[in-house]
Amino acid sequence: MKPSSITLGICQLAVTADKALNISKAESMITAAAKANCQVAILPEMFNCPYQAELFNQYAELYPEGDTFKMLAQVAAKEKIAVVGGSVPERDEQGKIYNTSFIFDETGGLVGRHRKMHLFDVDIAGGTVFKESSILSPGQDITLVKVAGLTLGVGICYDIRFPELSRLMTLAGADLLIFPGVFGMTTGPAHWELLMRSRAVDNQVFIVGAAPANFYEAPYQAYGHSMVVDPWGRILSVADAEEKMFVVKIDLEVINKVRAELPLLKHRRTDLYEVCHI
Amino acid sequence: MKPSSITLGICQLAVTADKALNISKAESMITAAAKANCQVAILPEMFNCPYQAELFNQYAELYPEGDTFKMLAQVAAKEKIAVVGGSVPERDEQGKIYNTSFIFDETGGLVGRHRKMHLFDVDIAGGTVFKESSILSPGQDITLVKVAGLTLGVGICYDIRFPELSRLMTLAGADLLIFPGVFGMTTGPAHWELLMRSRAVDNQVFIVGAAPANFYEAPYQAYGHSMVVDPWGRILSVADAEEKMFVVKIDLEVINKVRAELPLLKHRRTDLYEVCHI
Repeated sequence: MKPSSITLGICQLAVTADKALNISKAESMITAAAKANCQVAILPEMFNCPYQAELFNQYAELYPEGDTFKMLAQVAAKEKIAVVGGSVPERDEQGKIYNTSFIFDETGGLVGRHRKMHLFDVDIAGGTVFKESSILSPGQDITLVKVAGLTLGVGICYDIRFPELSRLMTLAGADLLIFPGVFGMTTGPAHWELLMRSRAVDNQVFIVGAAPANFYEAPYQAYGHSMVVDPWGRILSVADAEEKMFVVKIDLEVINKVRAELPLLKHRRTDLYEVCHI
Repeated sequence: MKPSSITLGICQLAVTADKALNISKAESMITAAAKANCQVAILPEMFNCPYQAELFNQYAELYPEGDTFKMLAQVAAKEKIAVVGGSVPERDEQGKIYNTSFIFDETGGLVGRHRKMHLFDVDIAGGTVFKESSILSPGQDITLVKVAGLTLGVGICYDIRFPELSRLMTLAGADLLIFPGVFGMTTGPAHWELLMRSRAVDNQVFIVGAAPANFYEAPYQAYGHSMVVDPWGRILSVADAEEKMFVVKIDLEVINKVRAELPLLKHRRTDLYEVCHI
């Protein structure tokens, strides 16, 4: 049976060039979330590695032997908390690198993994320039996992820009969509909150955006502003750009209430259109 | 060839119970838009009839002989301006009633008609209660029209809540999506701007939301706030709740610029999903 509420710990850590320090900070924040009675801890995108394409190869790890994966599994089991492991550069056995979120349940067992499906290749005049596809391979799968009695849909950062993905995760039964993401100082102020709120309102689900804190030494400046949004589009909690772990308890009954009052999913004209999973 | 810019006149009129007055005010505002060098005038949803389901039958007209349609065709031809005729209750020859937008070109010729596809049947605790399907039949078609050298996608109010429709209109080549709409005092403050901006950002098109002004005697209080949003999600102009006609010139090159910098439509994973028009 689904729980009526769940408590989330959002870990907005400041990612540095020191990988061991990043791993250790993530472990501390997950532990703090567990001590605060959270059932799920959520890390940001690229939490063990600066968000710079030229560093992804150097920081990449192979599952399960990588230090980051070991820490995540161990702290989840030790603290009895599910962990959505933001993302890290993952190397597969063929040597391909992905931007991947590993998700562990409260026993430390791996329950799923999302490889970023949409790679961030943009060139904004006077703003952000990035080309993930220069080093990363794209994921091929939509990711839903069951933890703490809930169905979570997991996407990574740029994945949120494609309404088809959130819709498909919702139709597949997600209660909560989680997007670790590193929006920068161009797209962050312009679109981060808008995207979080609109996916929540259109799909009548909870949304978590988990960003790293801004770290002033990094070449790519993170916008921060991790947030949790409810199915009516209300921001339940939002961070500024500073490092912090914050706790948000969500009332899952709000999903049923909003869907009963404004039955968007029932009113879709599936006799005229559908989002097809190919 | 597409023009590089176009000037729109948004007619946020206060809809009263007096149908003849509503028609006359719409004609004046369209004329004022033409005098201000607009190429397209845009009216709000149910501009000739209060937004009350029990009145739709009484105010409904059959095309082409209805007074409202005659006025729209005549003023378009006389003033040489295309008109997106918001919407009106339309009766067809079988006696069915639709919430329909009639679109005329600058010669007064009918170029298309959109019948609202998604009927607004909601029951929000302490807020809006409405049941369009008690009287209206739903439209069965996605509507794109060519006027003033542009491709316009037209939806009506609740139609905007379904991201599939805006995506399909965009993929079919719309440069500008137009949503006449009467959001009320519950969903208006909560979602009107969010929906306009998110459809613009996701699809990298211009969006027009054309609402009636708030009219204090009406049982259903309109939120107003007609607005024009650009493909980056910037609000180019927004009204308050008062009656006014306002002019917005849009630079169509912004579509190409935004799509080149942040190639969302190219980055869709159509190998994994697609929005299918059934």
